[in-house]
Amino acid sequence: MTNGVDTGKHYHKSCTGDALVTVQKHSTTEDITFFAACFCPFVQRVWIALEYLQIPYQVSPHVSVDPYKKPKELLEVSPKGLVPGLKLNNFNPPKALNESTVILEYVEDTDLHAQIEASLANSERSLLPPKKDPYARALVRLQCDHVNRSLVPAFYRFLQAQDQEQSIAAGKDFLESLDGLAGLLLRAERESQDPVALGLWHENGSLNLTDAMAGPWLFRASNVLKHYRGFELPENERFNRWLLRLFNHASFKATCSTEELYLDSYERWYAFNRPNTSQVANAINSGRNLP
Amino acid sequence: MTNGVDTGKHYHKSCTGDALVTVQKHSTTEDITFFAACFCPFVQRVWIALEYLQIPYQVSPHVSVDPYKKPKELLEVSPKGLVPGLKLNNFNPPKALNESTVILEYVEDTDLHAQIEASLANSERSLLPPKKDPYARALVRLQCDHVNRSLVPAFYRFLQAQDQEQSIAAGKDFLESLDGLAGLLLRAERESQDPVALGLWHENGSLNLTDAMAGPWLFRASNVLKHYRGFELPENERFNRWLLRLFNHASFKATCSTEELYLDSYERWYAFNRPNTSQVANAINSGRNLP
Repeated sequence: MTNGVDTGKHYHKSCTGDALVTVQKHSTTEDITFFAACFCPFVQRVWIALEYLQIPYQVSPHVSVDPYKKPKELLEVSPKGLVPGLKLNNFNPPKALNESTVILEYVEDTDLHAQIEASLANSERSLLPPKKDPYARALVRLQCDHVNRSLVPAFYRFLQAQDQEQSIAAGKDFLESLDGLAGLLLRAERESQDPVALGLWHENGSLNLTDAMAGPWLFRASNVLKHYRGFELPENERFNRWLLRLFNHASFKATCSTEELYLDSYERWYAFNRPNTSQVANAINSGRNLP
Repeated sequence: MTNGVDTGKHYHKSCTGDALVTVQKHSTTEDITFFAACFCPFVQRVWIALEYLQIPYQVSPHVSVDPYKKPKELLEVSPKGLVPGLKLNNFNPPKALNESTVILEYVEDTDLHAQIEASLANSERSLLPPKKDPYARALVRLQCDHVNRSLVPAFYRFLQAQDQEQSIAAGKDFLESLDGLAGLLLRAERESQDPVALGLWHENGSLNLTDAMAGPWLFRASNVLKHYRGFELPENERFNRWLLRLFNHASFKATCSTEELYLDSYERWYAFNRPNTSQVANAINSGRNLP
């Protein structure tokens, strides 16, 4: 079911394109050390948030290269050796944090970005609508819940499907899940008292938690799924406008490597579904939750 | 693998014991209408939080009885017809919210409880450590992430396992997941600058987000899994102290029916794994994420 043959391409160990420039900009010591891997969408979630919130961080010199040879510095931060991980050097001794969704809430909870923003005299940035509007926050969290429990697993089932019947069914599921997200975005716009604060369709330069949560897989749908599964994002003008706003946002683009990096990196793990090449792939194959 | 024979018991439609008393106390119109089902652990999550935060609510007269005959009032609130759901009558027209984890964040975000507490001149209650300590909040969220992605699915795989080999493996997984939770609780105590604010081992009368997220399944492990799988909670003095604190908390007990209700209600769905009796059971059988 894969377009083309298994060329035996290897995953990349260094970022390319805009993401490489961003890594180079974040090579000096900061309060946050960011353990990353160039191709990992869970890493990209956190990266988008760090960039958008303008939180100072250093990309770890230890594992920006290869999470499959786990150095002890990573294992100290993330017990399963999974990226993303943060080392928080402002504590003595330093503290650690892992799990992309937990880290996203953490960076939203910290006032690191508020301090920076204040010093720049900009308006305050946030991944969630203001605290005075808990219902708007819940509308965004409904989208994130859908992304985590439906869209992300559906992406991997589709990419890993190895026969035609499986692939058609998995492709249908993935499209349905995208429709579900589009529906939740429309609902949020309809029900929120302040749609601009949601940062949904409006080109006011904002990103939100849903963008960070879903963006990395939507991006890979536009290149990896397109290449290996002939997938095209649905023709939904409104949804596509929302996507383009995300894909063209400076904080999103700053975390993207060139297309070739993703195509090469995903071939080995998912598109030919070789066993034991990824904890994520194994979880999908055995019907378990993602690690 | 089930102790005893399939007696064909039916799920209950009304609460019993302490939970029945609580339903009766919450039978008049309030800003929040709570769509519930007496046996559902996802419902119980929200219920614990509403009780603990002392948020005024009415248990819906429409579906406190039977979520398998879904009235239109529930479908308006929860598109998949799944409980829990909230109808928020303080908006005009009323708004709706579903998904237990999203509702928990919502009730934490609202200041409804803060207002109530202030009027009672009590100290403020919260499910999360104070905002000034984002790392402590993250430690609690790490526990919740583990509960949602490991403990809850492991519970259902264990309860639904129908042959000895499956059951032994699933029981081992469930125990490992409990150990994982115990480890995260210890880590939180060790790393937090204010362990009392975490409400972990200390008998200061507090509950937190982890208690609400995990409590319903830990409780069912102590009765349903014990009865149908001969399961005993691990001999870990510290973990058991944490559990007892939770099980004996007034806000937790207020949401518990008598043991018989759980044993009867779970037999049909899970312990004999009859097909198509529950969306949760079907998801586990097909290796999908929970609905």
